[in-house]
Amino acid sequence: MDGFAATSLSPGVLPDDEAGEPRSFLDRLFDGGLLIRTGVDGLYGRSGAFESVVEAVDRLATGLGAEDGAEALRFPPAMARTAFERSGYLKGFPNLAGTVHCFCGNEADHANLLACLEAGDDWTGKQAASEVVLTPAACYPLYPVAAARGRLPADGLLFDLQSYCFRHEPSLEPTRMQLFRMREYVRMGSPEQVLAFREMWLERGTAMMAGLGLPLAVDPANDPFFGRAGRMLANNQRNQGLKFELNVPVNSVEKPTACLSFNYHQDHFGLTWGLEQADGSVAHTACVGFGLERITLALLRHHGLDLAKWPAAVREKLWG
Amino acid sequence: MDGFAATSLSPGVLPDDEAGEPRSFLDRLFDGGLLIRTGVDGLYGRSGAFESVVEAVDRLATGLGAEDGAEALRFPPAMARTAFERSGYLKGFPNLAGTVHCFCGNEADHANLLACLEAGDDWTGKQAASEVVLTPAACYPLYPVAAARGRLPADGLLFDLQSYCFRHEPSLEPTRMQLFRMREYVRMGSPEQVLAFREMWLERGTAMMAGLGLPLAVDPANDPFFGRAGRMLANNQRNQGLKFELNVPVNSVEKPTACLSFNYHQDHFGLTWGLEQADGSVAHTACVGFGLERITLALLRHHGLDLAKWPAAVREKLWG
Repeated sequence: MDGFAATSLSPGVLPDDEAGEPRSFLDRLFDGGLLIRTGVDGLYGRSGAFESVVEAVDRLATGLGAEDGAEALRFPPAMARTAFERSGYLKGFPNLAGTVHCFCGNEADHANLLACLEAGDDWTGKQAASEVVLTPAACYPLYPVAAARGRLPADGLLFDLQSYCFRHEPSLEPTRMQLFRMREYVRMGSPEQVLAFREMWLERGTAMMAGLGLPLAVDPANDPFFGRAGRMLANNQRNQGLKFELNVPVNSVEKPTACLSFNYHQDHFGLTWGLEQADGSVAHTACVGFGLERITLALLRHHGLDLAKWPAAVREKLWG
Repeated sequence: MDGFAATSLSPGVLPDDEAGEPRSFLDRLFDGGLLIRTGVDGLYGRSGAFESVVEAVDRLATGLGAEDGAEALRFPPAMARTAFERSGYLKGFPNLAGTVHCFCGNEADHANLLACLEAGDDWTGKQAASEVVLTPAACYPLYPVAAARGRLPADGLLFDLQSYCFRHEPSLEPTRMQLFRMREYVRMGSPEQVLAFREMWLERGTAMMAGLGLPLAVDPANDPFFGRAGRMLANNQRNQGLKFELNVPVNSVEKPTACLSFNYHQDHFGLTWGLEQADGSVAHTACVGFGLERITLALLRHHGLDLAKWPAAVREKLWG
């Protein structure tokens, strides 16, 4: 896959580090008003300027896929708990999930809750799990919907998704938010169909990011599976070439940030959801995911916090 | 406030009821592919067509406020739990809140969780409350941010917000979703400043909705405070004229749907958050909220499920 490393990953040193900037990137984003503190690591407000970049990157992704005839669907940031349970997410990533819990009591219970709150005691113990769970990746709500439509047509199916996603991993790296937006294209069909889709997006995504003036490399990757058993899953995923990430140095040169990912799920979701190809064999799936906040942060890190001063060619690509 | 009822609320009968349509509005939205079932009442996917209306209504709201110089901020769909606890929301609406809970265990706990799941037992009991809570209204994350900036300038402040919001009220009325988007303008300042703001938006919002060909009425309203004590709060709110809603018949003529709301909080949030006017006195606040899904559903109910067949004047307003 080295052919996809269209430009050199390592700028050697990031622009503001070179300038001797003593503050962390996150602090500079706060000071510049681009992100807004909430008191929780990884949970931030966004300024209008920040959002204008997110929207422009989202439009770029729309433009790149415009000729493919994808069906656009938009799901809210939570999904049905029954579908979440069946998805297998809890096997691999129990620590990242966010279940939504609610108060189901009467007026006396309410009085107790408020007394707990007033006393500074824990009031959350009696919250009960609701029927929804926060969406961990934009495509998770899609598979049961697609499976409910019956067998795929001979050409397979292609979907266009975008959603806020939740992962419980509080961090001081601005690129590791607990709530962030993921744009995705998802392909369902034969192994050949979905691998051709992934190959096409590896090229498109790399060209898009290089065109935005970002140093990048495409590398084999694995999901952060939980625990010791997870290590084996991660190794398998990496050795089989199932996941690639497009990395850009954002927080540091040494630990670049995955801004896009290109994933071949084989028949995992097909088996999980009973998704069938036209001939009745199990469907394969693949997706490309754009981390909209991460791409925005990469642009801010490399071109500076003042959008008006970004290179004209980059501004032209984003805002025409 | 009767002056704001620019057109008659009651069309007598809704267009498709008149046509003898036997299916519920929700079923027709599913059948037409505009909303997508998830198995949970009030939690739906949206089609590309549905989203195109949401986005157009959002742009209309942007256009109406464009000259006012509001500061745009966008928060993710959850907020800090400490801020949520301090906000007072749990006093009024404990039953609507959604707390986010996470797994904090080790590998043995994970094995137990998966065994519970496999056996069909409840695996959620050991999830622990995280530091975030789903956002109940777009302006809730704003107040602590504004208060942290210090005293308001003499002209006060004006913010432009939009966010997915969560309310735990499963329902078969498509207008009562558990996750929906709220666009808001929020004004902070003196009582005169914030009341003038609310008056201006009562006029703008009414003109916008009448211009979209929707029958409407503006009525005094109250929030759905919990329990018996809540009834007194609701009566006070209504008697003091603190809340008005712009209602459109969507599910039925008898029970019209609040599509916009116009709220004067008096000094509630000012006192809660220590928000001060330029002279050090407590700040008053007001907001106008646009229920983006509700307005979209009102348009679909009155103009039909085929956007291409909507009246030319309505299409012109939405898509130029």
